[in-house]
Amino acid sequence: MTSPDFSAGAAWQRGEFVPIADASIAMTDWGFLRSDAAYDVVTVWDGAFFRLDAHLDRFFASCRRFRLDAGKSRDEIVGIITHCVRLAGLRSSYVEMICTRGQPPWGSRDPRQAVNRFHAFAVPYVWIANEEQRARGLNVVMSGVRRIPSASVDPRAKNYHWNDMTMALFGALDAGGDTVLLTDGAGGVVEGPGFNVFAVTGGRLVTPAEGVLEGVTRRTVIEMAQSLGLPVELRALAAEELRGADEAFLSSSGGGVLPVTRVDGHELGNGRVGEVTARLRDLYWEWHRDPRYSTPIAYGGEVS
Amino acid sequence: MTSPDFSAGAAWQRGEFVPIADASIAMTDWGFLRSDAAYDVVTVWDGAFFRLDAHLDRFFASCRRFRLDAGKSRDEIVGIITHCVRLAGLRSSYVEMICTRGQPPWGSRDPRQAVNRFHAFAVPYVWIANEEQRARGLNVVMSGVRRIPSASVDPRAKNYHWNDMTMALFGALDAGGDTVLLTDGAGGVVEGPGFNVFAVTGGRLVTPAEGVLEGVTRRTVIEMAQSLGLPVELRALAAEELRGADEAFLSSSGGGVLPVTRVDGHELGNGRVGEVTARLRDLYWEWHRDPRYSTPIAYGGEVS
Repeated sequence: MTSPDFSAGAAWQRGEFVPIADASIAMTDWGFLRSDAAYDVVTVWDGAFFRLDAHLDRFFASCRRFRLDAGKSRDEIVGIITHCVRLAGLRSSYVEMICTRGQPPWGSRDPRQAVNRFHAFAVPYVWIANEEQRARGLNVVMSGVRRIPSASVDPRAKNYHWNDMTMALFGALDAGGDTVLLTDGAGGVVEGPGFNVFAVTGGRLVTPAEGVLEGVTRRTVIEMAQSLGLPVELRALAAEELRGADEAFLSSSGGGVLPVTRVDGHELGNGRVGEVTARLRDLYWEWHRDPRYSTPIAYGGEVS
Repeated sequence: MTSPDFSAGAAWQRGEFVPIADASIAMTDWGFLRSDAAYDVVTVWDGAFFRLDAHLDRFFASCRRFRLDAGKSRDEIVGIITHCVRLAGLRSSYVEMICTRGQPPWGSRDPRQAVNRFHAFAVPYVWIANEEQRARGLNVVMSGVRRIPSASVDPRAKNYHWNDMTMALFGALDAGGDTVLLTDGAGGVVEGPGFNVFAVTGGRLVTPAEGVLEGVTRRTVIEMAQSLGLPVELRALAAEELRGADEAFLSSSGGGVLPVTRVDGHELGNGRVGEVTARLRDLYWEWHRDPRYSTPIAYGGEVS
């Protein structure tokens, strides 16, 4: 027997650690058949979790909103995801924790009778924009697809209802864009696949208040702006206002502060990565070394 | 080695047939991580598929709408699902065919680069209402949760975006109801978890036209009504109109025509299963013996 190869990532599933390529969920789990799941993503940078507490808080809150019980304590989850990172030997990692409904006994369609299941995995750090895109700034397409409204699915609970995002992304990529922003059906920009959005005009930041995931990176941006004395408005962001902004950027655990320099191919401001954007981007990485937000991983010792 | 136990159902996954308990999808498949999938359910009753062609047509149409390619011909899919039913030895079965996005190469977030995957399974026939509920008629709760609108996710493509349905179902079950109906946010009833809805007043049927899955059972009901000379209106169905109807029923592959006798606990009409409802329910099962709709399964021969 050869030992398992965790080099591409490690997962915890069905009570055991396996290489990411072997990780699966039961086909009959409502987490798949009904997208009945909540999740969260925390990143590891330079050997430490970033804002682990905030991600755990939100994960438990998401589960509560969807009446899911991961059946694991906070410490147990930290133990599992830490071991996934260790097994994969990753200094920088994208770490996902998931709770699925499981399934009720055969014949029942009562979700209250299901035993919920916890899963997790750690893979190499994921960037939602590549190096070239980050350097020149993203060309974001405004989609006609409407983000699933809050009255249907609570966006504050992180979930896998992404068909609107994915179909909008297809359209944006076909149109030559780098990524896509969805709207609220009333002229307001909301969010895109895996990120929140900020517009910067006259040194003031604006980010949508409603119908969006309350991103941990979004919160970090708000806190960073406050630390720099930049005002932040949480309110509806009209598509026209974004198009007319001096600068814009996306916020995501998959890369932090990601500059936007074009909307639908038209240059934003002077067409270059904005000053405020660059300052926040740099500060984002500085904060990764701040012990207030950073939880170092003990890599030493035996890896089972 | 003991031979695999297919008694609880059989699945086709990763190119092989396995017992349903062993069926899984890759944790990293966007079919799970982004609910990026299309599916269909066809039933087997008394040894024959019911309206197999209609379900295959819709499955391929759903895949096209979501830019998914199952990579299987119609005949190949029929071969796979037939073998699942045979392996499980089921005379009555709930058969699901699924296409998931798969995943793009690591580092890419471009869905166009993913290799889509086909999966299928056959399990014992699923009733969305139990025997007692079918006899007395269902007590349906009207939920305040809004069905995901068509502007966000195309409901004509059968998909797993069910969080709205599931959260509404929790509320309905807690309130003592049997199941739940969601609305369109403008006072209209649309559909519930796994079914369409019909109201009957003065011998006329009304079923919502927009924002619903175009159910094959819904279509069967419309055709049955036409064969009986009953007029059918496809249009918005106001919640108040449903509450004031003589009769109502749900249509689903999971049981056919399912009588509703209470809405939010209040009796509909005389509180008993309606005459039109009963007539359509009986005709639904008669049509299962009609060779126009029925595709018998050859159970004989070796089971691999």
